[in-house]
Amino acid sequence: MKISKRIQGLTGGGSDGWDIYRRSRAMIADGKDVIELTIGEHDRRTEPEILTAMYEAALGGHTGYSSIPGISELRDAIAVRTTERTGIKTERENILVTPGGQAALFAAHMVACDPGDTGLFIDPYYATYPGTIRAVGAVARPVPARARFGFQPQWDDIAQDAGSSQSLLINSPNNPTGVVYSEDTMNTIVRAAQEFDLWLVSDEVYDSQLWSGTHLSPRQWSDMTERTLVVGSVSKSNSMTGSRFVWIIGPEEAIDHLSNLSTHTNYGVPGFIQDAAVFALSQGPEFEDRIAKPFRRRHAAVGEYLMSRQVKVVPSTASMYLMVDIRSTGLSGEEFANRLLDDHLIAVMPGESFGASGAGHLRIALTIDDERLMTAAAKITDMIQALASEAA
Amino acid sequence: MKISKRIQGLTGGGSDGWDIYRRSRAMIADGKDVIELTIGEHDRRTEPEILTAMYEAALGGHTGYSSIPGISELRDAIAVRTTERTGIKTERENILVTPGGQAALFAAHMVACDPGDTGLFIDPYYATYPGTIRAVGAVARPVPARARFGFQPQWDDIAQDAGSSQSLLINSPNNPTGVVYSEDTMNTIVRAAQEFDLWLVSDEVYDSQLWSGTHLSPRQWSDMTERTLVVGSVSKSNSMTGSRFVWIIGPEEAIDHLSNLSTHTNYGVPGFIQDAAVFALSQGPEFEDRIAKPFRRRHAAVGEYLMSRQVKVVPSTASMYLMVDIRSTGLSGEEFANRLLDDHLIAVMPGESFGASGAGHLRIALTIDDERLMTAAAKITDMIQALASEAA
Repeated sequence: MKISKRIQGLTGGGSDGWDIYRRSRAMIADGKDVIELTIGEHDRRTEPEILTAMYEAALGGHTGYSSIPGISELRDAIAVRTTERTGIKTERENILVTPGGQAALFAAHMVACDPGDTGLFIDPYYATYPGTIRAVGAVARPVPARARFGFQPQWDDIAQDAGSSQSLLINSPNNPTGVVYSEDTMNTIVRAAQEFDLWLVSDEVYDSQLWSGTHLSPRQWSDMTERTLVVGSVSKSNSMTGSRFVWIIGPEEAIDHLSNLSTHTNYGVPGFIQDAAVFALSQGPEFEDRIAKPFRRRHAAVGEYLMSRQVKVVPSTASMYLMVDIRSTGLSGEEFANRLLDDHLIAVMPGESFGASGAGHLRIALTIDDERLMTAAAKITDMIQALASEAA
Repeated sequence: MKISKRIQGLTGGGSDGWDIYRRSRAMIADGKDVIELTIGEHDRRTEPEILTAMYEAALGGHTGYSSIPGISELRDAIAVRTTERTGIKTERENILVTPGGQAALFAAHMVACDPGDTGLFIDPYYATYPGTIRAVGAVARPVPARARFGFQPQWDDIAQDAGSSQSLLINSPNNPTGVVYSEDTMNTIVRAAQEFDLWLVSDEVYDSQLWSGTHLSPRQWSDMTERTLVVGSVSKSNSMTGSRFVWIIGPEEAIDHLSNLSTHTNYGVPGFIQDAAVFALSQGPEFEDRIAKPFRRRHAAVGEYLMSRQVKVVPSTASMYLMVDIRSTGLSGEEFANRLLDDHLIAVMPGESFGASGAGHLRIALTIDDERLMTAAAKITDMIQALASEAA
């Protein structure tokens, strides 16, 4: 049977860039002692008190169809959190809950793009971005954020295709680079969105993993609430990735349409998960800090160690990742990562997995215990130095 | 900001047919003692043992990203169940789990239709069907199943637009009518799918609420496994509607693409919900029968009562609904339902809410305790008889 062209073209053909990940998993399954630093999965599980809140909500009867835009208590809690953190007035009507970040990114692009439209996204990017844009029938076009500008997107690169596009997807704090967009960068992005009349889709799910400075959201800029769709989450800050719960913040008219879209594409988030999210949000910053703490510590320790040994680390103040520049070795990120896995049983993601702009880099996930992580950092450094001196 | 045409056009304009439902909910909120027979929500919550299995899975650590097509144990359990019930060999590779029935219907149409294609659906229909087809960018076109044929779709009605369509969505046992398609009807549907080269999307979520006879799936017909996508569920049979867990059965190539689509649009089903589903599926037919029992009893009791008083009941052997023909009263379903709500504080869905072919009918949901249900049936009958004798 003929399968739709759109679904056949989702991944754009070629490798999906996750070969190293799959190879390391296969080696682990074969009993090899691989140090696994590929994916952004917490080494910590969801806190038992959140799970108990979920269980109690379910036993209490919240097991039928729930509110599709989200129960009022939850939308209000998210609105209050957003108003407090950004200073921008946000109300229940600006909030929609969705079953996970992918559903939110997909829904946001359903608002912004009709079939045949063009959605821009910043490269390097989280693996699913272009496929999610293609899933709405739009053309996904990368905007390079260049290593030589510290992966901060520049006006000329954004402006290049913006005139023929309908949306721009940004992600700060950024995965894979860990980079936080500066105020200058955000000024540039906002100016482009306004000048070229773009929807701005702002993926801010790492805002709770900011290790210094203040989180900036483009929704804080003048005249931006009407064209910005923010994807927010407590998945990372509360180790709830598996609960598939995220929210979208946007103008009321867009949220109304998104609620309607949810009715037709997923019917919302389980009620007992929404109750658990209310509980998680009510725990306050200390609770989230407790979960963030190991990543903050590892980010600092590994970053300092690498720099002390002259490894070029991408300037980063956020996230559970560090990105390092290995171009001095003469190898591509992919070649380096494959050799690292074969020779030292350490798995990291090659920068190329996140787009052309990540070439010659590695992404290290800080998701294992400190001791093994430092062992891996030392071995990665040794390998970079050995190869760089050969290449020199 | 310009919102995409597709998302603006999802509901096709006009009333969504749920005014009575909203009005009855508002009256209940105002403290009125309304007998609520509108929606297909169990009056029974999810069994505590299923919720405990879910909680234990979560505490045990299944709180991170889970397998997107579904964990192997769950896909295997669904495959075994399908093979046993249908006699058609079904394997893990034919199964994808999705977060709920809407997600499954949306995904199935993403396989079948590109933007601009046409998806057929049988009218009367569950409220979201046309919007779900429009969400993939396709044109949604109704095929009437006429009251005079007992709501069994006929060749001429299907063939009318089939030549210019890519898919046909069917639902047996049917919501809203409770009708089960006969073997003749299924022959007709299968012949049309083959002759006009259509994908057949078969929504079978009510297969566990069949009160007599055997469930027929079009996937059981020769040469149909390659063009049929079945949506199956334990939501109804295990009172798990709120857990948002459903599956799709289809050819391996389509399932591969659907797994890829899930990666880009929802990232699968929470692991602890998948574990709870494994538990629910392992409980066997007695467990499901226990949940189905009240609906079976009420379906028989209300049906017999109405017929004993000469009310025209749509021939039905399944589901938690009964549909009655009120055309003898001279009122539309909508007029009747509004008057019933105002004069007798009983809320039922007008047939028109489910499409033009349901006109002049009411759908009664069997989702309250037997005593109140029989009281409501008596009042509805009295009102039909009084109005019919006035009209005669």
